[in-house]
Amino acid sequence: MKARRVVLMNRPAGEPAESDFRVEPYDVPEPGPLEVLVRVVYMSLDPYMRGRMRDVASYSPPVAIGAVMTGGVVGEVVKSNDPTIKVGEIVEGRLGWQEYGVARASELRKIDPAIAPISTANGILGMPGMTAYFGLLECGNPQPGETIVVSAASGAVGQVVGQIGKIMGCRVVGVAGGKAKCDFVVKELGFDACVDYKAANDLDAALRAACPDGIDVYFENVGGAVGDAVLRNLNFFARVALCGSISQYNETAPMGPRLLGTFVGKRVTARGFIVTDFAQHWPVALKRMAGWIKAGKLKYREDVVEGIERAPRAFIGLLRGENFGKLLVKLGPEPK
Amino acid sequence: MKARRVVLMNRPAGEPAESDFRVEPYDVPEPGPLEVLVRVVYMSLDPYMRGRMRDVASYSPPVAIGAVMTGGVVGEVVKSNDPTIKVGEIVEGRLGWQEYGVARASELRKIDPAIAPISTANGILGMPGMTAYFGLLECGNPQPGETIVVSAASGAVGQVVGQIGKIMGCRVVGVAGGKAKCDFVVKELGFDACVDYKAANDLDAALRAACPDGIDVYFENVGGAVGDAVLRNLNFFARVALCGSISQYNETAPMGPRLLGTFVGKRVTARGFIVTDFAQHWPVALKRMAGWIKAGKLKYREDVVEGIERAPRAFIGLLRGENFGKLLVKLGPEPK
Repeated sequence: MKARRVVLMNRPAGEPAESDFRVEPYDVPEPGPLEVLVRVVYMSLDPYMRGRMRDVASYSPPVAIGAVMTGGVVGEVVKSNDPTIKVGEIVEGRLGWQEYGVARASELRKIDPAIAPISTANGILGMPGMTAYFGLLECGNPQPGETIVVSAASGAVGQVVGQIGKIMGCRVVGVAGGKAKCDFVVKELGFDACVDYKAANDLDAALRAACPDGIDVYFENVGGAVGDAVLRNLNFFARVALCGSISQYNETAPMGPRLLGTFVGKRVTARGFIVTDFAQHWPVALKRMAGWIKAGKLKYREDVVEGIERAPRAFIGLLRGENFGKLLVKLGPEPK
Repeated sequence: MKARRVVLMNRPAGEPAESDFRVEPYDVPEPGPLEVLVRVVYMSLDPYMRGRMRDVASYSPPVAIGAVMTGGVVGEVVKSNDPTIKVGEIVEGRLGWQEYGVARASELRKIDPAIAPISTANGILGMPGMTAYFGLLECGNPQPGETIVVSAASGAVGQVVGQIGKIMGCRVVGVAGGKAKCDFVVKELGFDACVDYKAANDLDAALRAACPDGIDVYFENVGGAVGDAVLRNLNFFARVALCGSISQYNETAPMGPRLLGTFVGKRVTARGFIVTDFAQHWPVALKRMAGWIKAGKLKYREDVVEGIERAPRAFIGLLRGENFGKLLVKLGPEPK
């Protein structure tokens, strides 16, 4: 059986182009002993993937030229040589940008479709949700009554950060690009305010107006000018959860935050983290998050593109901030 | 009685000039009720003073134009209206750049000349020593066998950081400008290695050679290109104690460290601190440090300039890295 996958063709210096990827047919493999074959339903597109296109040492190895782009997926088991996984079960795993993939049980997480739509295993009940949960709670250490600012506020991670912040009793201010995203996080998700960085003439003044008591926790997703403006408005003993800096991922000479003076004088602690550092605590966090969703305290928005051939363009748009909510590519129908 | 003091005349945009200061005569004041008059013996010059010359919000208010430059001093009580302090006692306090000053007992720390030379109350057994101690131990959290890098390694703070690092069982690598300073910290103070940033063609390669197991703790005193190079060579879960960034203090547009990518991927924690945050723990730390000095485990080097009229030029030189060891200005003879 033939299927389609996306491989990396070039390492772009700046913004990726569609020609840096190739959508190509391949023979769907047979699962070996103790392996299963998964039909991918949802493929996740995430900013970190830009880092995998670079040939530099990072916390994960780069994607080789000609190799399938890496990434998380949710799919249906269609063949199984492992007695612990049945055909028809829903699983989440890192099968990459392809319509079918083979994996071992130890590499897969079983998803219960009764808890939430299966797409959430790539989003709020998956890596982005866990990133928000542990980044905010472990690195940000928010206390009730404090002010949290989160950039890329309507994104896969940002929207969850803000809502968990509200659950924790904090004032939550988002930063997002455009009125629609700002309205969404305030009106739909319950953020206290949102600064539109594209519309603000004076980002510092807009942040000060939205954060009258200053900023105690910054969940950093974007870096660049937005990050700088937030850092300038931190309170004494503020915490910065360093999750990412999407504004800089396409830059050949990334801009540094003008951190040091502020960080010393304000006694700021900034902590970088990777969501897998907290892997052993995911089960508890997922249970807690599922409870909040059920209680109506945690909502989510997805941005679903159909067809693997649209993945490269959608990924380029993600880095431009064109998506609105967690970006997913739907490769096939959900199981009945 | 007349004495001399140094006042701030201008707020320099870049490097200060001697004309930004004025050495002027003043009438030595009489101490009021419960006050004492101190004759300054040693006046401390420290990089943080550059920040006080700026008219911007910081952790301390700026020096007003026409006001005496702030700073720590060690001196002899020459008049006392406080029964708890006797004439002839040695005290340390923040009397600024002047030959005589008045203060209350609560603003002064009594110094025991039997423990160490009184000048050390401005240095290794004072603010710079405490900065090294708490910055390294509380923010850097070094573990035996780890590698510590400290910049401005022969400076007032850096020389102490490295020696405490050795006491803690770490590999210690300094970064300093020039062979004399590098030789000093290795041969005299027992650092394992020192990178001469002025001589190194490739700072990254020099750091890698000096730190074969990578860098676990960075005590940041300088920022700029040196800071960037160290940050690029941090290990996973490294800690950065953000003490200062002297290379940037005269810059009108300070350079930011290219932190974020590294900090996320490497899970770095960077923490800014001010030595007074740990004020309540100073007595224990000072006792411990005095013990190490007595045991020969902790040495120190001072760079003493004579005469208050030389203070402005010496301070300008400090920001250029011209001093070699803790910079002090000696204003008068030590008490017999």
